[in-house]
Amino acid sequence: MACKNCLNNPVIQLTNSSVKLCKSCFIKYFEKKALATIKSYKLVEKGDNIGVAVSGGKDSLTVLSILKKVRDKFTDIKLEAILIDEGIEGYRDKTIIDARKFCDDNKIKLHIFSYKNEFGSTLDNAKNKVALKPCTICGVFRRYLLNKYSRKLGFNKLATGHNMDDEAQSILMNQFKNNAEVSARLGPITGIKKDEKFIPRIKPLYLLTEKEVASYAFLKGLVTTFTECPNSFDSYRGYVRDTLNDMEARFPGTKHGIVNSFLEMLPLLKKHYGKNASEIRTCSECGEPCTGNICQACKLAKKIIS
Amino acid sequence: MACKNCLNNPVIQLTNSSVKLCKSCFIKYFEKKALATIKSYKLVEKGDNIGVAVSGGKDSLTVLSILKKVRDKFTDIKLEAILIDEGIEGYRDKTIIDARKFCDDNKIKLHIFSYKNEFGSTLDNAKNKVALKPCTICGVFRRYLLNKYSRKLGFNKLATGHNMDDEAQSILMNQFKNNAEVSARLGPITGIKKDEKFIPRIKPLYLLTEKEVASYAFLKGLVTTFTECPNSFDSYRGYVRDTLNDMEARFPGTKHGIVNSFLEMLPLLKKHYGKNASEIRTCSECGEPCTGNICQACKLAKKIIS
Repeated sequence: MACKNCLNNPVIQLTNSSVKLCKSCFIKYFEKKALATIKSYKLVEKGDNIGVAVSGGKDSLTVLSILKKVRDKFTDIKLEAILIDEGIEGYRDKTIIDARKFCDDNKIKLHIFSYKNEFGSTLDNAKNKVALKPCTICGVFRRYLLNKYSRKLGFNKLATGHNMDDEAQSILMNQFKNNAEVSARLGPITGIKKDEKFIPRIKPLYLLTEKEVASYAFLKGLVTTFTECPNSFDSYRGYVRDTLNDMEARFPGTKHGIVNSFLEMLPLLKKHYGKNASEIRTCSECGEPCTGNICQACKLAKKIIS
Repeated sequence: MACKNCLNNPVIQLTNSSVKLCKSCFIKYFEKKALATIKSYKLVEKGDNIGVAVSGGKDSLTVLSILKKVRDKFTDIKLEAILIDEGIEGYRDKTIIDARKFCDDNKIKLHIFSYKNEFGSTLDNAKNKVALKPCTICGVFRRYLLNKYSRKLGFNKLATGHNMDDEAQSILMNQFKNNAEVSARLGPITGIKKDEKFIPRIKPLYLLTEKEVASYAFLKGLVTTFTECPNSFDSYRGYVRDTLNDMEARFPGTKHGIVNSFLEMLPLLKKHYGKNASEIRTCSECGEPCTGNICQACKLAKKIIS
């Protein structure tokens, strides 16, 4: 079987169809799809100052690479990278090397902030001090630091490497735990017009699967290793991911079905839950936005230090 | 561990909690929950003439048994049973015996209609003649016959034995295949005010799991065998059912999460898709309601006979 578009040897079969593509045609297909997502959901506009949340993994270096292409085409867009070093030995220290290399090679400014400097403890140490799963700690700390420093650095949007698999997992997880309200905060662009203290998030890889993103990163030589976070294996998300991959293998198109039916309902969810949205206050300890008196990050940081 | 409410030996642990109940307390719990569903969603009202779709299996005899209790309490409700004999040897012929016995014992009129009489072929024969899965054939023929004869028999509502597992599976299947519009037709009560030719459906077991319904049917001696349809094993639904059971075992409450988050969104879906609902016409062959010129049942019947 040759590539659908030319006679070269194929390197990938797309997950949602029987189409096979060679390296060059796959890269074109991938970039076209990411750019179409950016255009269709107006993720990037003239004058944007975009921060890209990078970890040094395949997803974040791919989104940075795609946005660099957009910036090179439209000179009135600013682009910088922001990396949160959680302090996960044998994982983050490795991916930081790839992140630095990509940013150096492409002359993109890279800002690094760490749990250690900000909260006085690495994740490796913190997870032994509180009865919380490491993914829960990261859910609070990463989101906090990314928002705080994106605002301080003057970004008006923060781009993340979330792909279709991530989104399909989140949709199902919220559904399985009866958290439809949380799903109203998903989608390819979030946080617009919510509160100026929250930096809107954009997801240019929203309509590309994990397999496609990994293939792109590998074929473009963006990453040297495919390391996965050591904490991800026994998580709830990890189980949902494996179940979903099994379903996709048996019934190709399942992930697309989940995300596309969600996109159809998203405007209804946003309208419905937008009416009852919690009032945004300011944390009395750090001044960051929160819904109560003290933000989750300050509460958690206290527990870790004590 | 004793029953939560008394000191008797427990017979079941509820799927959504760690609560264990003895036979007598479980039966009370089950009936209370079914009655609360009926009340809360106004499934039964004074003057109703209810047909109950029975197959003779655990779900349908349980719903018939529950509705008989409601009828015995409110004498201004009429109750009859309707059974569709698809012609599945070794399965339907066995469950019909239980259906007849229950109806005879409880003086409930039972109306039987068969594929053989209506379409000239049993399901066993039909499935060899068309390139369709048996569940797809039943989806068309059963729905058609139930609606047609419910109307002819003067029922203003048709009760079915759908339980929480059935609903959670349907929600996921529609989602995986990007059929959100079809989900707008789910819920504990459907078809009200849609068109007088469509008999509204009610699902009194909506908030009870398959395990709970099977336990109730067994403890009350409603069925003599737990036979499953021989066609159900290699179906898409069968795979989703097994996946969901596996998730529920690892993460108890998953099914409740799916159904409860769906119930929260259902009014939004109904409002949204109700606006674009297809116009109801009349089948030019049989006069039954349909969206095109000829209904699906007439189209399928022709293929089977030819």
